Amino acid sequence: MDMTRETFSKVDVLIIGAGPAGLMAATWMARCGINARIIDKRGTKIFTGQADGLQCRTLEILDSFGFADRVWKESNHMLEICLWNPDFEGKLRRSDRIPDTIPGISRFQQVVLHQGRIEQFFLESLEEHSNIKVERGIFPYTLAFDETKAEDPNEYPIEVVLQHLTDDQINPRQSLATRDGAATSDGLFRSNIAADDDTDEVLSDAHENELTVINETVKAKYLIGCDGAHSWTRRQLGIQLEGEQTDFIWGVLDIIPITNFPDIRMRCAIHSSKSGSMMVIPRENKLVRLYIQITTTEIGSKIERWSINPKMILDSAQKIMAPYKLDYEYCDWWTAYQIGQRVASSFSQYDRMFLAGDAVHTHSPKAGQGMNVSMQDTYNLGWKIAAVLNGTANRSILRTYKSERRAVAQELIAFDHKFSRLFSGRPAKGIMDEEGISMDEEGISMEEFKDALEKGNLFASGVSVNYGASIIVAKEDDAAAQGYEVGVAQNINARVIGKQHLASNIRIGMRMPSFKVLNQSDARPWHFQELLKSDGRWRIVVFAGDISNGNQMFLIRTLSEGLKTLAAKYTLGTNGTDSAIEILMIHSAPRINIELLDLPEIFHPWSKRDGYNYSKVYVDDISYHEGYGKAYEGFGVDKKRGCMVLVRPDQYVSWIGELEDGGEVERLLGGGFMVGKVEGDGEGMEFDG
Amino acid sequence: MDMTRETFSKVDVLIIGAGPAGLMAATWMARCGINARIIDKRGTKIFTGQADGLQCRTLEILDSFGFADRVWKESNHMLEICLWNPDFEGKLRRSDRIPDTIPGISRFQQVVLHQGRIEQFFLESLEEHSNIKVERGIFPYTLAFDETKAEDPNEYPIEVVLQHLTDDQINPRQSLATRDGAATSDGLFRSNIAADDDTDEVLSDAHENELTVINETVKAKYLIGCDGAHSWTRRQLGIQLEGEQTDFIWGVLDIIPITNFPDIRMRCAIHSSKSGSMMVIPRENKLVRLYIQITTTEIGSKIERWSINPKMILDSAQKIMAPYKLDYEYCDWWTAYQIGQRVASSFSQYDRMFLAGDAVHTHSPKAGQGMNVSMQDTYNLGWKIAAVLNGTANRSILRTYKSERRAVAQELIAFDHKFSRLFSGRPAKGIMDEEGISMDEEGISMEEFKDALEKGNLFASGVSVNYGASIIVAKEDDAAAQGYEVGVAQNINARVIGKQHLASNIRIGMRMPSFKVLNQSDARPWHFQELLKSDGRWRIVVFAGDISNGNQMFLIRTLSEGLKTLAAKYTLGTNGTDSAIEILMIHSAPRINIELLDLPEIFHPWSKRDGYNYSKVYVDDISYHEGYGKAYEGFGVDKKRGCMVLVRPDQYVSWIGELEDGGEVERLLGGGFMVGKVEGDGEGMEFDG
Repeated sequence: MDMTRETFSKVDVLIIGAGPAGLMAATWMARCGINARIIDKRGTKIFTGQADGLQCRTLEILDSFGFADRVWKESNHMLEICLWNPDFEGKLRRSDRIPDTIPGISRFQQVVLHQGRIEQFFLESLEEHSNIKVERGIFPYTLAFDETKAEDPNEYPIEVVLQHLTDDQINPRQSLATRDGAATSDGLFRSNIAADDDTDEVLSDAHENELTVINETVKAKYLIGCDGAHSWTRRQLGIQLEGEQTDFIWGVLDIIPITNFPDIRMRCAIHSSKSGSMMVIPRENKLVRLYIQITTTEIGSKIERWSINPKMILDSAQKIMAPYKLDYEYCDWWTAYQIGQRVASSFSQYDRMFLAGDAVHTHSPKAGQGMNVSMQDTYNLGWKIAAVLNGTANRSILRTYKSERRAVAQELIAFDHKFSRLFSGRPAKGIMDEEGISMDEEGISMEEFKDALEKGNLFASGVSVNYGASIIVAKEDDAAAQGYEVGVAQNINARVIGKQHLASNIRIGMRMPSFKVLNQSDARPWHFQELLKSDGRWRIVVFAGDISNGNQMFLIRTLSEGLKTLAAKYTLGTNGTDSAIEILMIHSAPRINIELLDLPEIFHPWSKRDGYNYSKVYVDDISYHEGYGKAYEGFGVDKKRGCMVLVRPDQYVSWIGELEDGGEVERLLGGGFMVGKVEGDGEGMEFDG
Repeated sequence: MDMTRETFSKVDVLIIGAGPAGLMAATWMARCGINARIIDKRGTKIFTGQADGLQCRTLEILDSFGFADRVWKESNHMLEICLWNPDFEGKLRRSDRIPDTIPGISRFQQVVLHQGRIEQFFLESLEEHSNIKVERGIFPYTLAFDETKAEDPNEYPIEVVLQHLTDDQINPRQSLATRDGAATSDGLFRSNIAADDDTDEVLSDAHENELTVINETVKAKYLIGCDGAHSWTRRQLGIQLEGEQTDFIWGVLDIIPITNFPDIRMRCAIHSSKSGSMMVIPRENKLVRLYIQITTTEIGSKIERWSINPKMILDSAQKIMAPYKLDYEYCDWWTAYQIGQRVASSFSQYDRMFLAGDAVHTHSPKAGQGMNVSMQDTYNLGWKIAAVLNGTANRSILRTYKSERRAVAQELIAFDHKFSRLFSGRPAKGIMDEEGISMDEEGISMEEFKDALEKGNLFASGVSVNYGASIIVAKEDDAAAQGYEVGVAQNINARVIGKQHLASNIRIGMRMPSFKVLNQSDARPWHFQELLKSDGRWRIVVFAGDISNGNQMFLIRTLSEGLKTLAAKYTLGTNGTDSAIEILMIHSAPRINIELLDLPEIFHPWSKRDGYNYSKVYVDDISYHEGYGKAYEGFGVDKKRGCMVLVRPDQYVSWIGELEDGGEVERLLGGGFMVGKVEGDGEGMEFDG
């Protein structure tokens, strides 16, 4: 250890792991101006293989950071799922087609693009908006926590020792698989099917070879562990993954297929009669990913994992797909896995150290959930930590990370358990029988499978996530059941409950849906969600109703006075003049009957350099080129009287109320988690978002 | 001159000027693999001001190169034009609203983004697809042409001496204007309103100061002069601009306006009763461009150009906009201009040296045409030169550049003449009179103005361009009138004329319109135009009709044999196996009734590495998420019997015929301009695009 040098530093947020979950956390810090670092032991980002599916909600989130369009452009779009099953003679036949994404649930649909490109978009976004760079080749070594400092916002209770290694020690052994399976023992294979324990190996290698190791001691206010299924951070915290392992072994091939199978560019679920199951995921650049069941009844279940190679996976695929032919010249990546459904016993400690992504939930990859739920974890967590550090929120908000995301992880695991079992099971005989028999004791009914797939698609889209009642979700249900247990419930004596009935399709606890509206000042159509950028701001959306009616306009003028005071009370920095609450309007009067500048100034805030702001008022009216969004109808809001909606910085709906309920929103924000300015500080502030 | 060094080089295409027209030419060369250079005397690209309007057709073209989405995202979208006029009491009032882009004419609408960003997208695209880089700080010095070598395709008849200068000699004096007009005499002002003759100055400066000048002698096969209104290339060729100068002087301000004018984010035409006219163009980044008439009756017409400054332009704007207030803190750019409508007497010499863009047409900037028509010039020219150099076409095709683009330039000038006159004229009294009087001897009728504006919008969109009959446009009309004059007509004895009636909305001579279709193999919706990438290929679009009908499928099988032979005859390189003709199908049978692999192989060409190609067959059917494109209805093609359309590499329609008319398209391609392979060379070729 005489080759070791020591350095010391401090940082507000230390993120361990620069996969999608870690990069999402870093992106929040970048956009909220937080002092953060993100480290990764890998020497480079992913180039091939790994996760690839991107669900609707993930695309909505990436769009809130401004780069979903890049994913949309480069990715393969999956529109239809084709189900292939043996007919009553045992011959493989297309038995059904269903839409891959349920029509209407999002402005995006499920697409496929490999993880490396997603990471690249994050990296470019970080570079554009901050000085945060991924520091590679850095291994966390020890973790210590000073409990006495846990609740003091100015303290750095976390101490991590990091070891910086040289380049040639840290590059993962990624290589292309060859047809004959020569790559069996390379790093890719091991990193998926075996324990990812190369950290210790590499470190001891380094010490043995007396390479220079720089020890850096970092003190941090917050720690986010996004270091994967074999999370070092999780081990340091002594947190366990709980759940079960399956018996099924699956092979994965990313190939350019040479085949006469008719639906190779569709997502397919293929159940053969005797040779197991296979899923087809068409990808970008002519690639297709095949998930292939290896442990068929023919082969038996006693396969040794290290005996698996691409040729063997292809053999299985050929049997499943027979009589159609399948081969390839080009293989981009391959792996095999045997994985169960497991969830971490805890997601955080002291509300200072958090785990996210694969570190807290593992499951099969076939539903394309892994990368998505992982990013959504830190999308939920990032703005909360940033708000606490920026002085906008107090630390109580951090508890909602666990309450909200652990419930999602448990749903995910239940979904995957069911989905995997159905998919790995043998098909029932007779499912294509003309008599319509759909159950069979020997296997899985294809009706059951299709039904599960359709229901699963809603869950898999990510838009059905529904956060429970808490200090930041003012809804009636399950508050007692869930909120008190983990300490996220509102004060029972001053509890605010939103009026769900005022907006039937805006669900409190769910993400704000989107319909097209027009900007009042220039008639440009926007999907409303495009306006809810991830910049750390809460938003009050004033559905102003028909403001060509005098009474309604009177109501809006009255409301505006209160909102002006409210917005001035909460600022993004303790000394800032930039409100932490953006106020937007969607009205339902005819666009040409309303003049923006006739509305209260809070809807067209003024600044000395830029004049009026024209981006706050929208209208539910017909567009010249993109039809009529019918937003009020879509949101389920009364076109005459309107309503008011409080939206969290992550686009989830916190509260719904009448236009007269300004006091309620004030009470909700002020009652628990928001940190307001001292009265009188709001003088002369600008509301320009 | 003892400080001068000499070098020599050869290049196939030399492009002079790296503005939008030059960059478009270079982009074609990049995509077609042509050995080309592009030089510019400026030391840097444009950063502020200059051209900004992007019309529908331009966006379609940029999309064919893959970067319209970047423009669409960053630009300001203009949806509505508001007309403001004095009412009968002389008070300024909004008199009308019209859509800025006529609904339905394109999948894009008019947007505004400054020229510098457009140039940046071109530069990045060049870098991604080629080794072509803009070489800056290079002045063309002499031009010589050897007439004896004009028609020999292997010769380099053009010789240009270039002078390379040092950095500090070449940077244009761009600077921000100050409020008080201190920047009156800077380079920007001069470069717009005065002759752009700084070339000679800078060169003589360099010689006087005995700086090192490198003389490079370049021999080229083709020369494209895109060097602006004061084109050096045009002067060398002795070509004149013909036309007239106007008396009107206009000022231009790019500011962030501080105003209570209600429509500042709309495109507005404001006619004041006594203070002249103004056009409002809302731009990106909160900017607004104001075109302001300076020579009002109050100020008089004897203004000296050098007395114009931002304050003076603002004063005029304030008078026109009264009683609304107008001011600014931030000015991004300003200029003034006095310009007429002029067209070059010729566009080319020897079909070796070509002029494009401002070098051959100048006009007012208010209709946002300059950058667009300039790019469209070289979009027309680039693929033709590339095809000749690649051995796909013979030199006769080059004549169509002049015949096609000079007609457009003349239309542009006529349009601008009318538009400018209407816009600069005084409004008629009484136009808002309740009696509806709309004519007045003293000025321009607002009805006349609105009518001209609406008609002008179609022309301005760029989609109404209709190329005359020629060897590459097989249509009936005006062949004799136009074609023979400039030598582009088909051989009278073997003339092919397309059957326009088979596709009522696909007009021979106009660009292929676009409707949504689905890919047969994966059900993904595409706007058909997205498939017509600018890669130098001709395309035969087989509207196959209802191929679930056996007779129709029989017809398609028969046609396929002929198309296979035809596609094999024309290759992109003389020794290549890559066809210069891509064959696409749009059928009208229900998607799920057709299996791609049941179609003739030409519609799913096979390659050893990639298997079948899934990108050739599309269907007019309903999509899951984007509605029903109704493509056959939109194109005006019979859903049962279909038709066949030949599309040029620039998306213009060359010919339309029956599915039985394969012999006609063969005769058209073989009869004049295409260079085919010797019989028998097509063995074993792949059709993969």
